[in-house]
Amino acid sequence: MNHRMIRYIIGSLTQMEAAMLLVPALTALIYGEAACVAVFLGSALFCLLGGHLLKGKKPDDVTIFSSEGYVSVAVCWVVMSICGAMPLYFSGYFPNPVDALFEIVSGFTTTGATILSDVEILPRSVLMWRSFSHWVGGMGVLVFMLALLPMAGASSMYLMRAESPGPSVGKLVPKVRSTAKILYSIYFFLTIAEFLFLVLAGCPVFDSVNLSFATAGTGGFGVLNSSAGAYNAAIQIILTAFMILFGVNFNVYFLIYTKNIKDAFRCEEARIYMGIIGMSVLLISINTYSMFTGPGETVRHAAFQVASIITTTGFSTVDFELWPEFSRTILVILMFVGACAGSTGGGIKVSRVTIMAKTIVKELAVMNHPRNVRKTRFEGKPVEHEVLRSINVFLITYLGIFVLSTLVISLDGLDGITNFTAVASTINNIGPGLSKVGPTQNFSVYSNLSKLVLTFDMLAGRLEIFPMLIMCTAGFKRKRWN
Amino acid sequence: MNHRMIRYIIGSLTQMEAAMLLVPALTALIYGEAACVAVFLGSALFCLLGGHLLKGKKPDDVTIFSSEGYVSVAVCWVVMSICGAMPLYFSGYFPNPVDALFEIVSGFTTTGATILSDVEILPRSVLMWRSFSHWVGGMGVLVFMLALLPMAGASSMYLMRAESPGPSVGKLVPKVRSTAKILYSIYFFLTIAEFLFLVLAGCPVFDSVNLSFATAGTGGFGVLNSSAGAYNAAIQIILTAFMILFGVNFNVYFLIYTKNIKDAFRCEEARIYMGIIGMSVLLISINTYSMFTGPGETVRHAAFQVASIITTTGFSTVDFELWPEFSRTILVILMFVGACAGSTGGGIKVSRVTIMAKTIVKELAVMNHPRNVRKTRFEGKPVEHEVLRSINVFLITYLGIFVLSTLVISLDGLDGITNFTAVASTINNIGPGLSKVGPTQNFSVYSNLSKLVLTFDMLAGRLEIFPMLIMCTAGFKRKRWN
Repeated sequence: MNHRMIRYIIGSLTQMEAAMLLVPALTALIYGEAACVAVFLGSALFCLLGGHLLKGKKPDDVTIFSSEGYVSVAVCWVVMSICGAMPLYFSGYFPNPVDALFEIVSGFTTTGATILSDVEILPRSVLMWRSFSHWVGGMGVLVFMLALLPMAGASSMYLMRAESPGPSVGKLVPKVRSTAKILYSIYFFLTIAEFLFLVLAGCPVFDSVNLSFATAGTGGFGVLNSSAGAYNAAIQIILTAFMILFGVNFNVYFLIYTKNIKDAFRCEEARIYMGIIGMSVLLISINTYSMFTGPGETVRHAAFQVASIITTTGFSTVDFELWPEFSRTILVILMFVGACAGSTGGGIKVSRVTIMAKTIVKELAVMNHPRNVRKTRFEGKPVEHEVLRSINVFLITYLGIFVLSTLVISLDGLDGITNFTAVASTINNIGPGLSKVGPTQNFSVYSNLSKLVLTFDMLAGRLEIFPMLIMCTAGFKRKRWN
Repeated sequence: MNHRMIRYIIGSLTQMEAAMLLVPALTALIYGEAACVAVFLGSALFCLLGGHLLKGKKPDDVTIFSSEGYVSVAVCWVVMSICGAMPLYFSGYFPNPVDALFEIVSGFTTTGATILSDVEILPRSVLMWRSFSHWVGGMGVLVFMLALLPMAGASSMYLMRAESPGPSVGKLVPKVRSTAKILYSIYFFLTIAEFLFLVLAGCPVFDSVNLSFATAGTGGFGVLNSSAGAYNAAIQIILTAFMILFGVNFNVYFLIYTKNIKDAFRCEEARIYMGIIGMSVLLISINTYSMFTGPGETVRHAAFQVASIITTTGFSTVDFELWPEFSRTILVILMFVGACAGSTGGGIKVSRVTIMAKTIVKELAVMNHPRNVRKTRFEGKPVEHEVLRSINVFLITYLGIFVLSTLVISLDGLDGITNFTAVASTINNIGPGLSKVGPTQNFSVYSNLSKLVLTFDMLAGRLEIFPMLIMCTAGFKRKRWN
């Protein structure tokens, strides 16, 4: 392992976090929150110095390989989370350091699950730091770093691959740095667009900034206790539209950007994603029709909740705990499906689910006609054996972590639905679950051990399982496998 | 497709069911249940004649291939279930034909889930038919037929493979017919042994016969409303031991039978199975210690429940609904793990779970050291790519059916835990679930549609998913795939 290069990457990232901390510091300054100015500036200074010490001189050998990419990304996220939890802890609003860590990991991983029962007592700068962590974590903080700094040359692909969601990362253009730049430009543009629409619809400016950050990262931290329930219908519709847009594979936007409109509309994953959304909204609207006044309101709430859950954002306009079981089951299924690969959303991803479904169909065909050998096709191309294998391994590992986490947190003695949906909600980076962690509840019901397990799940979910596991196993691999 | 041969197989099976129906008919005669004598003899006659008409002359071409094997087995099980439901319906105790079908499918698939709140009002002949269906279904009714009749020559392997549980079926001896005979001899011997032990421990003879049938098939239908709670401790311990024994891969018994004791004890699947049982009993005993008087009683109840759930038998001595959430979570996980392949138990099977776990470990090693190419090993041999692929496809399809079933039955509006464990319990052929389908409850809470879905799940679970799916898709395959 190229330890010096890994240290250099972690150091650079910590310094970048110092820059990120200036955003809430500035907010504190604007709204006259003196204590918070000190806390955020202090944390920024700590990150700047700590990063400098860690970084050292740029190593001569900047080459890193796949496993080092995974480990770097995992360690980066852990370090970034600890540094990001610091100002929350010192702000005094999170007296338990585990809570502060849970909250900021929930932010960076764009989960949006909170420990707090009352977010409205938080200073604006703390609210801003929570929302901003969504925005930074959504597209990936290392991807951002790659866009800004010439880091590791050709090997930076490994960093990007380890941090980006989805079964396979295609470079949009030959250079990783250019790819990262294009991705962030699209991201930036869409966020600004949402902000403008929200302001036009009558949303306060501060709320609009926060909501835009949270939607862009498909995070879900709001600034009101009622999540998105208190905003007017126009704002809710705008949020719905942008949640759906941020769940689309960013390749589609790249194709539109390069004027390949036809190819953009041909994207199979995006079409299936839209199809699932449409079908779910239809079924839930029929199922909950009697609960609302008229079809307009029904469809609006159904669409909002479906978009919020499938993109793993986690906003809510109503308490879907009270919906009929059929609608709740649809929402739980959507929790697992998740958004498109290459978007900021979490979950298993539409592409993986699609390929799995196609595998079943193909196997049945082969069993009926053993001589009929066909490859599963996706996006018009045959799915390579290697991709299939990685999807299978992902699924098995995902289930393994899921089962173990549920078992450990069941020690707290809460009911099965709470535990099951708490893990589902964190590993898929959604936010609310059902029952005691439902949309009107929070995660403070759990013990510190459970909170740490769920924190691990959030990180594992955001980084798609393997970086975290490789970090945990990298220590004792030499003994067993060499 | 060799339709004539498939018809011949189905016809033969129906005629064999006529013979099976003589067992409850005889019971009715012994206990003087006149109406039931008529019902069971009538059904037997119907099966005899129907089978004769279906069967026709033995075809000249007895060759069948893999897909025909799957379809034959699936159709056989459906026909056998409908014929077996007939006497239940005409007995008058199941006025709803869907209930009668659910009950007998629950019997043949060794699920043991019931529609009835009171089984003690049933005549003894009906009780016997329920338990006997477990015994027949456990080892496989077609396997039994292969043991008795020279059917399809070399192609009978396809029938056996489609009906036997587990990722791969090894022929114990070169001839399928001899393999089937050996399997049934071991099965018969163990059942007799259990019966004798139970009688010696003071269990009434009628109860002993029924309990032995139900344990052997890992079914779970009892003759008392309290399941196994009313029997003395000795009987409960005997049941625990035999449940565990019937969950062991029958290859182990074959090795003992052929005096390869060393190889028998080396069986990796059986060792892991025993390890899981030991660990679960330990954890549950610690967790429930305060609920019982002393360690003896605690371990006895913990062991009984663990054995009952992991082997997918489904007997209960206590209402584990009342246990702490941690213990209940362990039981739910065991529901999915299931027993060994090549046993009469259901679930995903220990071998599949083990291979999946090893896949994760191997993948992590490969990611840490990309040049370290190792094959996953199981039972001392490398796992072939084809087996891995079939396990992955099994898992994906299993999850797909699971999700769809849960969605459909959620239309009835019951709570999530009930729906989730109802599907888990039926697809894994266990019996009781939690909440409204818990050990003291029954499945009558569901609508007819849900009961049919759960009936399908029981069949899919028993035949390991694919035969049922291939039967359902065989109709429209030509259009799409040729």
